[in-house]
This record gives sequence, C-alpha cells and structure tokens, in this order.
Amino acid sequence: MEMQSLRELMIDELKDLYSAENQILKALPKMIKKADSAELKQGFEKHLKETEGQVERLDKIFEQLEQSPRGKKCKGMEGIIEDGKELMEEDAEPEVMDAGLIGAAQHVEHYEIAGYGCARTYAELLGLNEIARLLQKTLDEEKATDEKLSQLAQNINVQAEKAA
Amino acid sequence: MEMQSLRELMIDELKDLYSAENQILKALPKMIKKADSAELKQGFEKHLKETEGQVERLDKIFEQLEQSPRGKKCKGMEGIIEDGKELMEEDAEPEVMDAGLIGAAQHVEHYEIAGYGCARTYAELLGLNEIARLLQKTLDEEKATDEKLSQLAQNINVQAEKAA
Repeated sequence: MEMQSLRELMIDELKDLYSAENQILKALPKMIKKADSAELKQGFEKHLKETEGQVERLDKIFEQLEQSPRGKKCKGMEGIIEDGKELMEEDAEPEVMDAGLIGAAQHVEHYEIAGYGCARTYAELLGLNEIARLLQKTLDEEKATDEKLSQLAQNINVQAEKAA
Repeated sequence: MEMQSLRELMIDELKDLYSAENQILKALPKMIKKADSAELKQGFEKHLKETEGQVERLDKIFEQLEQSPRGKKCKGMEGIIEDGKELMEEDAEPEVMDAGLIGAAQHVEHYEIAGYGCARTYAELLGLNEIARLLQKTLDEEKATDEKLSQLAQNINVQAEKAA
C-alpha cells in the first residue's frame, strides 16, 4: 500500500478500525454469554448495539471518501481478543471471571480510543469536518464505555475479592 | 492456569504487562531508527529508558509477590507491534511515516494504560498498597507519554499534511 499523504494514513487507520469493530461484533456475544453479573451482561449488550452504530458511521465515512472499508486485518484487536479468549477458557470463579471480562473490555476500549483519536485528528487537519465530527462522536462513546466499565468494576472487583 | 481469586487475576494481568513491556523494549529501537524527526527520535529514546525502569518496577512487584514474571505471552501487544511493523514496511513520505509512528506508539500506550489501570485497582482492593503505588507511578508515566505524543503529533501531522 502507498502512504504518501496524511489522507492515505487516515484511510489506513480507518480500515484498521473497521476491521477492529467487526472483530468486536463477533467477540461481544461470547462475552455476554460468559458474564455472570446481570448488570455486566446488560452493559455488554448495550455496547453491542452501540458498536453496530459505530460500524454504520464508518460505512458512511468510507462512502464520503469513495473508498472500500475492506482489505486490512487489524492484528492489534486480533491479539486483544485472543487474550480475552484465553481468559474465558480459565477455570475461574464467576465473580473473578466478571472482573477479568471487564479488564478485557477495557483493553478493547483503549485500543479504540487510540485509533479514533488519531483518525479524528487527521480528519480535522485535512479539513474533513463532517468525518471528524462522526469520529469524535464514536470517540466520545468509547470513552464513556470505558468510564462505565470502571464504575461496574467497583462492585464486581469487591465481589471477586470476597470470592477467594 | 487457575483463576479462583482476584489475586490470581492480578498476577495474570501483571504477567501480561511484563510480556508487553519486554516486547516494547525490542520494538522501540526499530521505531527510533525509523523516525525522521529529531524530536520524535528523542521522545522514543526517553520512553525506552522509562520502559526499562517500568520493567524494574514489575520485577520488584513480582519479588514482593514471590511469583515468577514469566510464563505468559501478551498477544494484544504482539498484534499491536505487528501492526506497527506493517506500517514501517510501507513506502511512505518521512513526515507521513512519523505521523504513523506516533499513532502506533499511542496504541501501545493505551494498551498499557488499560492494563496498569486494572492491575492498580486490583492491588488497591487487595490492600497491597506498596504494589498499588508502584503501578500508579507507571500508569502516570504512560499517560504522560500519551499526552507528549499528542503534543508531538500537532507539529508532525501538519508537516505530513504538507508532504502530500
């Protein structure tokens, strides 16, 4: 792939995010199934719906750029999800597993915060204001999800500590 | 591996971070070599020294826990570094490559922010105050590095935009 301009770097980053989001869409149902706490299940379900909206936003962006979203596999997200799969195979107390699932999800969120942050900054610099606005919207959602997970962790970690 | 307690989950997270840091120690010299901007090279060099200190901190923590830091390969960091390698193989303008290297480094930082954040929270809950303090110190450094990279990006992204 050529990368002679900031626009091409931005498209590369967006393809990475498109691949990442689609991997998350496949992983979240397994995490919902594995979660023990009703509140955590609900949180993951909400985020699954949100992720579908984020993919639609990316589709809209690629249309505006007249580019295909495909052609890249995000290996970072692949590895993060692989770590999560290893966790889900552990022989763990339900409360400890829930605490671990929150941690896994926070790694996912932070990957996306980095990616959307970069892509939004590139779009701004390129004067692609509508695209920058859409990316900022998703970035805000990812940050809010990370915050929500930290709040959920407060209760669940205490229960995991008592499970020992 | 057994994961019956929050302590075991914390040790698992710390092993993940130990593997991640050691992968970063190997990747950073290649990024320093690839960077074009003197300021970016310097930033990566500073972070390489900081990373060595962070590994020492983890060694100290594992000693206190009477555990081995080895036995886990962090696949998340492996994937993130793999994405970075792919970038470095691109045929890119130097300014665009620098912008991409900053983005790659911010993915690394955010992975660590998630990991150290979780481990610090577990240590606090377990009443391991000295370990929590060491982890918080590294967490603060990672956040500061991410912030520094965003500042560097302001100049470098503009240059990348002009390179087109």
